[in-house]
Amino acid sequence: MYNLNNTPWIKSITPEITPPSLSDNTADVDRLIKGVKNALKADKVSVDFSLVKKLPNLLSRYNYQVRAILFENNDIWHLIDILPLHNGDSLHALAVDLGSSTVVFRLLDLERNEIKDEITFHNPQIQIGPDILTRIHYTSQEGGLAELQGLLINRFNEEIDQLARKHSISQASIVGMAVAGNTTMTHLFLGLDPYRICREPYIPVINRLEIMKSKELGLAINSGAPVLVFPNVGSYFGGDLIAGILSSGMSFQDDVCFLIDVGTNAEVVIGNSEWLMACAGAAGPALEGGVADMGMMAGPGVIDQVVIDPDTLDFRIRTIEDLPPVGICGSGLIDLAAQLFLTGMIDLRAKYVRSRCGDRLRKIDGIMSLMVVPTEGSGTDQPLTLSQPDIDALIRSKAAMYTILTTVSNTVSIPMEDIATFYVAGTFGTYIDPRSAITIGMIPDRPIETYVPLGNTSLEGANMALLSSEARDEIFQIRDQITYIELNVNQEFMNLFSAAKFLPHTDRTLFPSVKEWRS
Amino acid sequence: MYNLNNTPWIKSITPEITPPSLSDNTADVDRLIKGVKNALKADKVSVDFSLVKKLPNLLSRYNYQVRAILFENNDIWHLIDILPLHNGDSLHALAVDLGSSTVVFRLLDLERNEIKDEITFHNPQIQIGPDILTRIHYTSQEGGLAELQGLLINRFNEEIDQLARKHSISQASIVGMAVAGNTTMTHLFLGLDPYRICREPYIPVINRLEIMKSKELGLAINSGAPVLVFPNVGSYFGGDLIAGILSSGMSFQDDVCFLIDVGTNAEVVIGNSEWLMACAGAAGPALEGGVADMGMMAGPGVIDQVVIDPDTLDFRIRTIEDLPPVGICGSGLIDLAAQLFLTGMIDLRAKYVRSRCGDRLRKIDGIMSLMVVPTEGSGTDQPLTLSQPDIDALIRSKAAMYTILTTVSNTVSIPMEDIATFYVAGTFGTYIDPRSAITIGMIPDRPIETYVPLGNTSLEGANMALLSSEARDEIFQIRDQITYIELNVNQEFMNLFSAAKFLPHTDRTLFPSVKEWRS
Repeated sequence: MYNLNNTPWIKSITPEITPPSLSDNTADVDRLIKGVKNALKADKVSVDFSLVKKLPNLLSRYNYQVRAILFENNDIWHLIDILPLHNGDSLHALAVDLGSSTVVFRLLDLERNEIKDEITFHNPQIQIGPDILTRIHYTSQEGGLAELQGLLINRFNEEIDQLARKHSISQASIVGMAVAGNTTMTHLFLGLDPYRICREPYIPVINRLEIMKSKELGLAINSGAPVLVFPNVGSYFGGDLIAGILSSGMSFQDDVCFLIDVGTNAEVVIGNSEWLMACAGAAGPALEGGVADMGMMAGPGVIDQVVIDPDTLDFRIRTIEDLPPVGICGSGLIDLAAQLFLTGMIDLRAKYVRSRCGDRLRKIDGIMSLMVVPTEGSGTDQPLTLSQPDIDALIRSKAAMYTILTTVSNTVSIPMEDIATFYVAGTFGTYIDPRSAITIGMIPDRPIETYVPLGNTSLEGANMALLSSEARDEIFQIRDQITYIELNVNQEFMNLFSAAKFLPHTDRTLFPSVKEWRS
Repeated sequence: MYNLNNTPWIKSITPEITPPSLSDNTADVDRLIKGVKNALKADKVSVDFSLVKKLPNLLSRYNYQVRAILFENNDIWHLIDILPLHNGDSLHALAVDLGSSTVVFRLLDLERNEIKDEITFHNPQIQIGPDILTRIHYTSQEGGLAELQGLLINRFNEEIDQLARKHSISQASIVGMAVAGNTTMTHLFLGLDPYRICREPYIPVINRLEIMKSKELGLAINSGAPVLVFPNVGSYFGGDLIAGILSSGMSFQDDVCFLIDVGTNAEVVIGNSEWLMACAGAAGPALEGGVADMGMMAGPGVIDQVVIDPDTLDFRIRTIEDLPPVGICGSGLIDLAAQLFLTGMIDLRAKYVRSRCGDRLRKIDGIMSLMVVPTEGSGTDQPLTLSQPDIDALIRSKAAMYTILTTVSNTVSIPMEDIATFYVAGTFGTYIDPRSAITIGMIPDRPIETYVPLGNTSLEGANMALLSSEARDEIFQIRDQITYIELNVNQEFMNLFSAAKFLPHTDRTLFPSVKEWRS
């Protein structure tokens, strides 16, 4: 697809340093810098003052036989640390996907060029507020911002400590970090006031941050390690999406591609190596499995696939780790809706069809609900049911997603048929069956192979940016190049949205591959 | 003589910043940076992370109408601070001569381009040890280095506080500092271990420091202000001398000049815009008035000029502030020795001539001493006398100085006649009568106008470096360009030295203008 150059911007070298003598009494730090410049053939080498203080001691203890660890930024090489020459420790870096609910760390071995570990934990700020808005409001309180930042940094440091112990590496051997998150999470991580992100005129404190050193944030990795925080495009378009674009490779391609990231917001990017446009709109949390009564995040016992036999109407349900079902995730919900539609159990308005649903349909608390798993098969003590309002929420979400894709495609006058690839980011993208998503009219009716799941693109983008200067620089080019399309919820949008609220769509010619159930 | 360009590297600008709106929701910091880049026509603008945190608050409080204060380094403009647009405060900077016994602050008004004040105080490290060696040894103690640095920084901050009060300016309006001191004082100021400066192989921690920010040193000026610490050439050739070279202008001239700095060490530099060579050697403290019984630093009541009537042998003595004499400074001592020689009271070996000295000569504690001021004319309760050993010490010092000058001149094969100017740095240079110095053979027998006193060149160099980027950059060029001549005290040196121990010299043809007394 595309190849990133192999020019690491964090690396270790072994400079030749002649020990001082009466005939060469160059100062210690100047001596080291000279050796580093020669080894790197570099012009500019910078040493942080805190390191200047420590160097003479280290140089003499190591007998001037050292490995120097450096990172490059803006053509200046910054010394991170020095180690004794024959220290066999590998160097590490940490790629971070900073989500508002989940944080993922990927520990990289920079020298063996391999992934050493990957851990996932809940964002500890959840204890203040599960959603971003609550946290933003919390920062208005005295000390609120510092508390939120502190929760995150402390938790980071605990996890780093555990990771280091687990792999018997020193925390100082972690010499780089890259963090991709949305704009608000980036602010909360850095201790920057997010107050105006959610208030007119909706502006962040900063979009494009310089590479920092870990000590500025109090992170328990090497104090001189660079921390690359992905830049934002705006309040509603964060570094996580830039990481996504980077990891998709679309900004290196000639063909026009779509990148779709589904969450509470539907975020889409269209473009190629020449241009990039982005758009985000509320899609509702239904696609994440966050709304339906039985909806939940993917995890053990969660339903991720449903097949309904068109003749017997038997439900064949698959759960993660094959445990008794406890709920359903977004991809499972899309599967279920598609199967209900294909078997005629819901109609094109997505309403339950009593004649097809039979006994499975009943009123619970006055609301029409379908029994998906009865109590006896359930992993909870309750039956798992899907109500008509649950389905309605899903339909609004899928309609929003389709409308956003259509609006973007219309804006740039590129028909869906001319899109080479649809990259689908996130956990959602990994688990979703594109066939089912097409069936309910959530995504355009293109060949299945056009849809490429990418997994955790924030993490992958952070990983790439740590390894290659080309990838790192591309981030800032993507940021500067991208045009953000403000989504105008005008009459035209509402018309498109209304048409998309049917299964798969009011315009059936748009979904030729979807065969409706006919009795 | 030479003109420095008028390109300040610390300056204030008024960027045009459009306040944020729904149609332009660029982040606050990016918005400011954009305005600054436009105003400066600059490519790279860097904002310290600690400032990023404060900016949104300040920008909105000042309604986006601001003065931005910046400094340039390596073609990157660094934001120091922002002020409200109509804040009339002038901006200031502090030039510092960091001597081991005396510190001088010069407060500059950067906008009116004028000197606002100049204050002098004793280096507070004197309480640990009057001399540099004692202080270096003290750093071997646990906490010794931090204590020495703390004494200095605290005293700096007290003086800054007082200066600001005195002139009703804010400490934050001081947005730059330049510090010129010798290598050891520079280390003690920065908290760098000076241990190996005085031990083989005599290497400093660092010679060429990057420009720092004041907060890194805990200085009570604007926390984002640049602090320029003059680089060293080596353990025995410090930033004070680089400042001297800068302030002399010799590195901009076509003619070859000498720069002479007299202290405990005699430091000399020879060269022009093409090349520079430096040499330092022990000259002994006699020239500073530090050895003779009656010797002292220049101050009220101190003898700075002596004329002896060749016929009556009456002494006409001038003191600073015309107070009753209390002692004699270096320049007074040179005058006195020259007059004693010209009147035949000492011979060409600098020994007292009993027949000429008469009653003034007597034995005190068994040592031959000359009465300079009797008890009744003295500002102390004691007569002021000059012993034969005092004169011998002076002669050794003047011989050392002359020998070093000759050695350097021989090394580069440029005869003294071809030297266009002899710049004489320091208090010594301001007070000394070159005629007297020539008479005793301390400096070459060149026309008086060849000798140019420069005053406090460390302070002046620091001042220049704060005002012009050309001057600032010249410092590092001087540093990189200069060749340090190790003074070999070999047989040739000893021969030269022995010949120079006479008045004015064994080779009388070298001093044609000096007329010896003939009875």
